[in-house]
Amino acid sequence: MAVRRVPQQDRSIETQRAVLEGAAAVFHRVGYGNASLSMIAEESGVSQGSMYFHFKSKEQIALAVINEQHARSLPVLHADPSPSASVFEHLVRVSRGVAEQLREDTVVQAGIRLALEEDSLQEESAGFYEAWVASTAELLEHAVTEGEIVSSLPVAALARTMIGYFTGVQLMSRATSGRADLFAVLVQMWVVLTDALIPEERRKTALAVVGEVFAA
Amino acid sequence: MAVRRVPQQDRSIETQRAVLEGAAAVFHRVGYGNASLSMIAEESGVSQGSMYFHFKSKEQIALAVINEQHARSLPVLHADPSPSASVFEHLVRVSRGVAEQLREDTVVQAGIRLALEEDSLQEESAGFYEAWVASTAELLEHAVTEGEIVSSLPVAALARTMIGYFTGVQLMSRATSGRADLFAVLVQMWVVLTDALIPEERRKTALAVVGEVFAA
Repeated sequence: MAVRRVPQQDRSIETQRAVLEGAAAVFHRVGYGNASLSMIAEESGVSQGSMYFHFKSKEQIALAVINEQHARSLPVLHADPSPSASVFEHLVRVSRGVAEQLREDTVVQAGIRLALEEDSLQEESAGFYEAWVASTAELLEHAVTEGEIVSSLPVAALARTMIGYFTGVQLMSRATSGRADLFAVLVQMWVVLTDALIPEERRKTALAVVGEVFAA
Repeated sequence: MAVRRVPQQDRSIETQRAVLEGAAAVFHRVGYGNASLSMIAEESGVSQGSMYFHFKSKEQIALAVINEQHARSLPVLHADPSPSASVFEHLVRVSRGVAEQLREDTVVQAGIRLALEEDSLQEESAGFYEAWVASTAELLEHAVTEGEIVSSLPVAALARTMIGYFTGVQLMSRATSGRADLFAVLVQMWVVLTDALIPEERRKTALAVVGEVFAA
């Protein structure tokens, strides 16, 4: 019996993965309200019965998509910075990494859309948002102590407003260009943040970093 | 016959207004995808037949809400600045005006939600977004020429990124606090923008303006 269990588990994991990917495609395309369980089953290539074995409701599927989005995005934030990189450079690289996911990974695209749009899912996603703010604040704390970054705001508020800024520009980019101009608008965001946060004598170097990270 | 026409027109306008307000409440509460024509009719206190006389589809109602949102918001942007106010102060006041609408006016709340969430409505709302960017750019152009504002970005890009920044912080405020902290997060945004855009010798004055506008 133990011998038969392994392939069953594999199949089960495969089914869940297919539902997640299918659901992400549907949520990304039409949003939560317009999505139905039958659309998700069809997109996943999984029978509704088999889907129901793993997920009891549309909400449960959406929460699984949000969880998976964060499982994929958080490693980008927590990636080891190169030893020579400043905190500023690390944050610029993180924003580029998340931008790539936003352009290429349906689960990340769907997760962000769900978290921002659907009030009933926001309790779940608020925790992840706070994790992003906290990690960013920790990095900024170090940079402010070292004098690398200077701001009139306390680091907690600075982290929060930077995450809000990123959220807004990626969303406008989605609404106006389907994220085709995402890298360009992120460069513009970093130019404003450079002017705001980097002491004048190091601003030119910081702008060069922004250009280099988003050119690559 | 002319005598009877006036009240009929009045009734018609009243019905359309009731549908707009009812639809805005529904769209704001549940989003576009979850909203139905029967929910809108019930919320408006208008029969479905009477509603259908004015609006043929949910999409048509949503577009009317977006139009009405902009009819209400654009005057805030175009309000005559006080003669002594800088461009910076004017923009801070405009952001406070829109923030008030976002907290109090269901049509504005619903319009923004629809424009950001619903791909099928984005062609319509893109025009209004561009109007906001263009008006902001025009104001910034003047301020940059006068040396009031200094930026590494061209004014068109600066206007776009500022609208994106505002969009993001108001959205995070909706998601995390139901917009209870909206004024606080806008103050934080303006602190970052002050550091980024206002020459150092006038920064203290600018920060005082931000504090005053959002305290009032």
